[in-house]
Order: sequence, then structure tokens, then C-alpha cells
Amino acid sequence: MATSNVQLVIFGGTGDLTTRMLMPSLLGLFDTGKLANFAVLILSNRNFTDDDYREFIRPFLRRSTKPDIPGFLQHIFYQTMDVTKGADYTAAAAKSHDIDKQFELGGNRIFYFAVAPRLFSPIIASLPDSGFLARPGYKRVVIEKPFGQDYPSAKALNEQLNHLFHEDQIFRIDHYLEKRMVQNIMLTRFGNGLTEGIWNSHFIDNVQVTLSETVGLENRAGYYDQMGATRDMVQNHIFQLISLLTMDQPISLRQEDVTEAKVAALRMLKTPDLQLVDQQFVLGQYLGNQQEPAYLDEERIPKTSRTETFVAGELNFNSYRWDGVPFYFRTGKRLATKTTRIDVVFKAPQLKLFEEHHQVIDHMAPNILTILIDPDEGLSMQLNTRDSDEETFGSTNAILANTQPATGFETPEAYESLLSDIIDGNTENFPQWREIAVAWQFIDALRAGWQKTSPIIHQYPLGSMGPEQADELLTRTGRYWAFDPTK
Amino acid sequence: MATSNVQLVIFGGTGDLTTRMLMPSLLGLFDTGKLANFAVLILSNRNFTDDDYREFIRPFLRRSTKPDIPGFLQHIFYQTMDVTKGADYTAAAAKSHDIDKQFELGGNRIFYFAVAPRLFSPIIASLPDSGFLARPGYKRVVIEKPFGQDYPSAKALNEQLNHLFHEDQIFRIDHYLEKRMVQNIMLTRFGNGLTEGIWNSHFIDNVQVTLSETVGLENRAGYYDQMGATRDMVQNHIFQLISLLTMDQPISLRQEDVTEAKVAALRMLKTPDLQLVDQQFVLGQYLGNQQEPAYLDEERIPKTSRTETFVAGELNFNSYRWDGVPFYFRTGKRLATKTTRIDVVFKAPQLKLFEEHHQVIDHMAPNILTILIDPDEGLSMQLNTRDSDEETFGSTNAILANTQPATGFETPEAYESLLSDIIDGNTENFPQWREIAVAWQFIDALRAGWQKTSPIIHQYPLGSMGPEQADELLTRTGRYWAFDPTK
Repeated sequence: MATSNVQLVIFGGTGDLTTRMLMPSLLGLFDTGKLANFAVLILSNRNFTDDDYREFIRPFLRRSTKPDIPGFLQHIFYQTMDVTKGADYTAAAAKSHDIDKQFELGGNRIFYFAVAPRLFSPIIASLPDSGFLARPGYKRVVIEKPFGQDYPSAKALNEQLNHLFHEDQIFRIDHYLEKRMVQNIMLTRFGNGLTEGIWNSHFIDNVQVTLSETVGLENRAGYYDQMGATRDMVQNHIFQLISLLTMDQPISLRQEDVTEAKVAALRMLKTPDLQLVDQQFVLGQYLGNQQEPAYLDEERIPKTSRTETFVAGELNFNSYRWDGVPFYFRTGKRLATKTTRIDVVFKAPQLKLFEEHHQVIDHMAPNILTILIDPDEGLSMQLNTRDSDEETFGSTNAILANTQPATGFETPEAYESLLSDIIDGNTENFPQWREIAVAWQFIDALRAGWQKTSPIIHQYPLGSMGPEQADELLTRTGRYWAFDPTK
Repeated sequence: MATSNVQLVIFGGTGDLTTRMLMPSLLGLFDTGKLANFAVLILSNRNFTDDDYREFIRPFLRRSTKPDIPGFLQHIFYQTMDVTKGADYTAAAAKSHDIDKQFELGGNRIFYFAVAPRLFSPIIASLPDSGFLARPGYKRVVIEKPFGQDYPSAKALNEQLNHLFHEDQIFRIDHYLEKRMVQNIMLTRFGNGLTEGIWNSHFIDNVQVTLSETVGLENRAGYYDQMGATRDMVQNHIFQLISLLTMDQPISLRQEDVTEAKVAALRMLKTPDLQLVDQQFVLGQYLGNQQEPAYLDEERIPKTSRTETFVAGELNFNSYRWDGVPFYFRTGKRLATKTTRIDVVFKAPQLKLFEEHHQVIDHMAPNILTILIDPDEGLSMQLNTRDSDEETFGSTNAILANTQPATGFETPEAYESLLSDIIDGNTENFPQWREIAVAWQFIDALRAGWQKTSPIIHQYPLGSMGPEQADELLTRTGRYWAFDPTK
């Protein structure tokens, strides 16, 4: 636990991200000694003094241990500013320099963009003249999602950043690259004598990625209706999972090598065929019930919105490893359960040997290796084994499992881990531009297809696993979702 | 549950097998209606009447349900006889015919040899002239182990049986072929899309069969000192397990097809090399403690006995499937725990990727698929996964398990299942002559090697897993026993 000597400059200090995630996680890092000599400068448009903000933030500083909250608050500072006004930057930078001097932080600064995405570009544009970057010490920048809204906007944002920062100074947050998740997939794949040899089309029939939420819009109606599930969840989280699952073994665990492997895997993705976009992808919007409104009845959502709150799809790869192996994904809001899981479905058993034994065949199912990510973390394996009944020769699907509760992606604990990496300058668990670019290129092609074909937006009941067409995506080839909490 | 119409003629009615296994299991079959119209004729040398025997056996008829014991006992008859005296057979057969008439059993008879092995041959020799086989109805014969003491004696016994019975009338009991065990291995191997494709030397590093007992001689000193662990346990039980694990997929589950596959597998076994017998096999005798005598101090055991109460060994196969894959086995008395289990050890992971991460590599272990047979039944799989510690990137060996208590091999329940098969004429779960022959031929070659090389009989502490040389059998190639209850 080294002393840190760093100032976090947070753009946006009164929103959910800062109050519920960043400040509690900073307190956690302070409490464990990871942050010792440090300061936090909050830049936001409310008329607060340092002390006002300290009082404002205090109720959010609940931790399971009993940290030194007054001691922590002495490191917190506040400056009122409108981030769209260039003039405000000078005063903010001056305060930042004062704080730097007071704590002897050597000019090390982390700029955290906890503001609406539309403000990313104005802030970056204002930085050079602000004086924020002038002095010695390292400068790093942290961007919460989304990184662009499509490939052109992401590319523009990236170029803007590249004028001021090197790639290793840019931290694009994607919770699904949080350490334990990546490490889990890496270890499951490459840390077992068995797995890598079966991680291909000879053994695997299909792979299913499920990322379901039970929540609805959570006051993000404006943002969400503009983005939809595909850009909000698939381009980033689901593509990250898919790339970790499909890549070849990287040469090392160093970030550039892992990125290279991930990009290579994603580049093997077959471009969505315009003729097939309609068959291979399913879009949906949730319906309501007596307590909860349907998507189209939500406040600030136009009645004519075609924004998808659910998307399922089939991805295919132009590679020997994955030839003929569909990767299915689904994500959506207001679904039956909150879960993030990967179900690797192996080829069905050859049943000729048991053809005279109906009690065996009737219960036979394909083997499934499940990587549970959230809310439980762990592994399970479904194997066919003998039914425990002494008399009959029947089979049963035994679930061999080893799981434990996970802490979740969007928790102060997860942010502690991310912030700790940023302070250490460790970019390993953050996506690099090349990964983001290739994912956006695919999503853009897909959305272009949708614009031309104008697919149906299927309505689905609140508490379901999406529209039934998402099941048909699999059943038309005799497959089915391995995970169905509604049954 | 069909009515059975059968008479069981049991040679030997006062020993452990009849009193503790056969009679309680017959009561169980009677209680569930599997046996309705039937009779049991006990032939033994004590001076009992029918009623004497019924009183004698009554205390053994404890079952968890409350069966109709008086009703059951009306089916039990007794005839005093010396099975070595030809003259006694005539009276016994006459009584058998009377009973047959009384119950209208149509002459169906099952002869069960629950006597010392030395009496098998005299009984078979006396059957033709006895009148026992004369009338219509099916005749079947059941032989408890051992089936011979070596290949020549087994062959002689088999030929003697073949003069009177066809192969499908001969039931050689090997508990390890009890239904659920065979079905478990069959389903695990051939009922999973994953397993058969990895069931070979590309994936598997070695296979370990452990069949350990905690008991000592149990009043069988004379028999045991003549036989030893190799002939008492390896030739039959362990070879049955090994043949089920190594065979190719049989064409069907019919007995002749399964036997063909098993025999083909065992014929691929490399004959023990005289030069290597000493290195590839380890023999041991148990030591005693303050409560229990050492083997050489047991009653009726000569102080100079070289009989092994423990044997471990390495088997290798001349096949593409198993090229370079050693099959290790161990069995013995007075060991640390009672268990029958198979540990399939997969090739070690390729660790280059993690070489800079000691916390990953230090805990990395090979994947192991365990088939638990007794006392628990089920499957488990050891995989490397991420350690649950949030901060460090470390690995842990996760055991994915699905097990349940088994009823055991030598229980009335297991005998019910075996007797039920015999009554149905179902030979599926009984070893055929060809399997026994090929196993004896290997064991004879091994023992011939021992006679020439006179290997050390290592002493091992009571409650251990055998002599430490049994560990060295594996450690000399960098391997180790996956299961070690002493650690």
C-alpha cells in the first residue's frame, strides 16, 4: 500500500456516480491506506463551498468498517463551475494548483469525467488552455461510458483525447472488465488442462451470454431512449465478454497482448448480412403492469419510440476455432432476474448406445459449463449421470457447482478496484481504443441494417426473459436458452 | 413385479453370506412382491429341521419396513447334508422336488454356491447324478468369488460348469458390476457430449483407481492368506473397473457387446515386464497398533507369510487411446478410509501465460474428474478458478461436486438387485468367462514375475494409505495420488 500523491479532479460531483460510487470507494481506499497523501477536487455547477460539499457528501459515506470520516473530508474540496464555460476552468485550475501545493502532490492528476456524455468533448477541449495540464506530474483521464454513440463519434472523441494524452493515460471504464471477471474467464480458459483443448467447434455447440436486468430506466430516460440496449450494453459489456471467450491465447497477460488477442477475435466476426439481420437479431420493448409503466408510457419517452430495451442476437465467426458455433447474447431491462452469466453448451451426446433405454434418453441434456459472473460468481458444469433410483436405469442432469456471492459490478467495492488501478497507472482492466473501435464498427453495421429493414420491435411482458422471438432465435436450429428463470 | 416361480437351492446356509446378505435380501424381494411363488432350500451340514433353521435365521431378518416374516418363513426349507458326500445329494434333490411340487414351481431352480471355494468343484461334480437337474424348468448357477485361484483353476472350474450349463445360465458374482456402478460409468462416459471426446491420451494424463478398506481379516484368515490382495480384489473388482474405463464404446448395451468391448480393452494391456515388475507394483502388509495386531500377528497367519494385504500398481495399454497414460490402482486392508473411487487426472495446464503471477501458479493443479462409487456415489470435477480474494490475482482449486450417499456393494440392497437379475435371467451385470480369463492371465503373469524376483513386502502403518513406496510409484514421474485422506 504505497502513498499515492495524487489529486482526483472530478467533473460532476453531485450525481449518482460520484455520490454513491466514487466517494464511498475513495473513502474505502483512504481507510485501507491505499490513499494517504491525496486530494479530491469536485467541479460542479451547484453553489457549494468546500464545507457545503463535505456536508452534502457525508450521508453517502457509509462503510461497513468505521473509517475516519472527518480525516477523509479534509482531503475533499469543491469548486463551483460550469464546464461549458471556458472562463471557469482558470479558477478551477488555480484551486487545483493550490491544493496540489498544500498536499505536495507533485502535479499528479486524474481527471474523472462523471458528467453527461455530451460534456466529454467540451471538457477535453477546454483542458489545454485551462492550466490544468501545465505543471509536471502525471495526468490521467477517466471516461465513464458511453465512449461515443457510434464509430464516428467515438473516433472523434478518441482523437480529441489523443491530442492531449497517450493511450496509457486514458482509462475508459467498462465494469465488465473489472479484474475478477476477466481473471475468472482467463483462469477458466487458460488455467485448466482440460478447457483450452475443448474450447472450439469440435466440442462446443453454442455459447450463450445473458446480461439481464430487472430495473427499468432509473431516471435515465433521456440518455437511454437515445441509446437503447444495443449501444448501452452490447457494444461494450457483451462484446468484452465475447472477445474474452473467443480470443486465442494471448502471448502474455500484459494489456497490449490481451488487447491484440481480443481485437483479432472480434475482427473474425461475420459482418451482419442485411438479409439475415431480421432473423439473427430480436429487438424488444417492455410492457408494464399495474404498478409499473410500459416503456412507451415512461416519463420523457416518446410514444413512438423505437428504442429497444431488449436485444438478443446471434454472432458467428470466420475462424477455424468457431466455425459453425453461434454465440447468442441477450440483454434487457425489466427482465425476470438480474444476472450476468455465460453458458457454454457442448455438443449433444451420441445417443445410439442408449436408444433402447427411454429413461436414459428422455432426460439427457447437453453438457453445459456455466461461468457465473453476477450476482453469484463461480463455475458450474452440467453432466448426465445415473439417476439415483436404485431400480431403473435412468439418467439425470447433475449440476456440479462451486459458486459464491459476488459483490457486483457497480458497487463501491468494484470502483475501489478500478480507482486503485487508475492510481497505479495499471491499464490492464480497461478497454483500449482498438477494441472499442472494432465493436462500434460491428454495431454500426448492424444498426445500418436495422435502419434499412426497420425490424419489428416486439413487446415483452415485464418479468419475462424478453419477447418469445428471442427463444425462436435458438429453437429454429433445435437449440434453447440454457438459462430460463421463468420455468 | 412378476410372480417368480422359482426355487433357490443354497449350498451353505449358516455362513455370513446367507445369514447377513441372502436371507435379508430374499425377504426384501418377498416384501416388495418380486418374489411371490417361490421356495428356498438351504443345504448345510448342521443338524437342523426346517423349523430349527427358521428359528435360526429369524434374528437376521431385520428390515426397515415391517415385512410379513412368518409368511416369508413358510417358504424356507432346510436339509442337512455334507456336500462332499454324493449320497446326500439324492435326499436333498428329493426334498427339492417335493417343494417344487408343493409350490408348483415348474422345476425352475437357482443353485447358489454360498460355500468355501474348495467346495465349488465337488458340488458341480455331484449335480448330474443327484437328480437336481433332471426335471423340466430352467436351471441357473450362482458362484460367489473367487472364480478360481489362477487361470488354470478358473479354466477347469469353467469347463466343469460348461458341461452342465450354458454361459447364460452361469452367474459369477462381482459386486463391482452391480448395476448402478456400471451404469454410472457408462453414462458418465457415453452419455455426455464432452466426455468421450476427451477420454484419451490427448487430454488424460493418468487414471487412478482406489479401492481401500479399513477392516482387517474378518475371520477369513485361511482364505485370505492363501489369496492375498491381488487375487482377492485386483483380478476381479479392479479389472472390472479398469475395463469399463478403458474400453471403446460397445455397439450396444447388450451383455455380449459390452463383454466384447471390455475383453478387447483388457487384451491391450501390456504384459508386465519382468524387469519392471519391481518398479511398477508395490506390495505391502499392515502393521498393528496397541489395539489391533499386525498382519503377521493375526491368528492363523504364519509368521513368515509373504501374502500381500496391500497392492498398488501401474498398468499400461498398447492402444492409441491410452498410449502413455498410466492407470494406477491400489487396494488394501487396514487403510485410512473405506472408499472406492476413480480419479481421472487431466493433463496439467500450460502455465506460460501466468508465469509472472506466482499466486496463480502456486495453487494450480491438474483438472480431475472423480467418479465416486462408495460410500458416496456421484461425480466431482476439480477446476482451477480465480481465488475469491478481491485484491490478488490468485487461483484456487474449485471442486464442483454432485454426490449422494450410496448403499454400498455388500449390503442386502445390493444383493436384492443381483438376485432380482438372476431371477429374471438377466446376465448383464455379471462378468462373463472371457473377461475373467483375460484378467487371470494378466494376474498369473504378474505373480510369475513376483515369484522370480521375490519383491519386498513393505510394511505399512495401520490407518495409512499403504507403504510410502506406493506414493513413489507416482512421484518418480512427477505424479501423485489425487486422493489422500491422510493429509
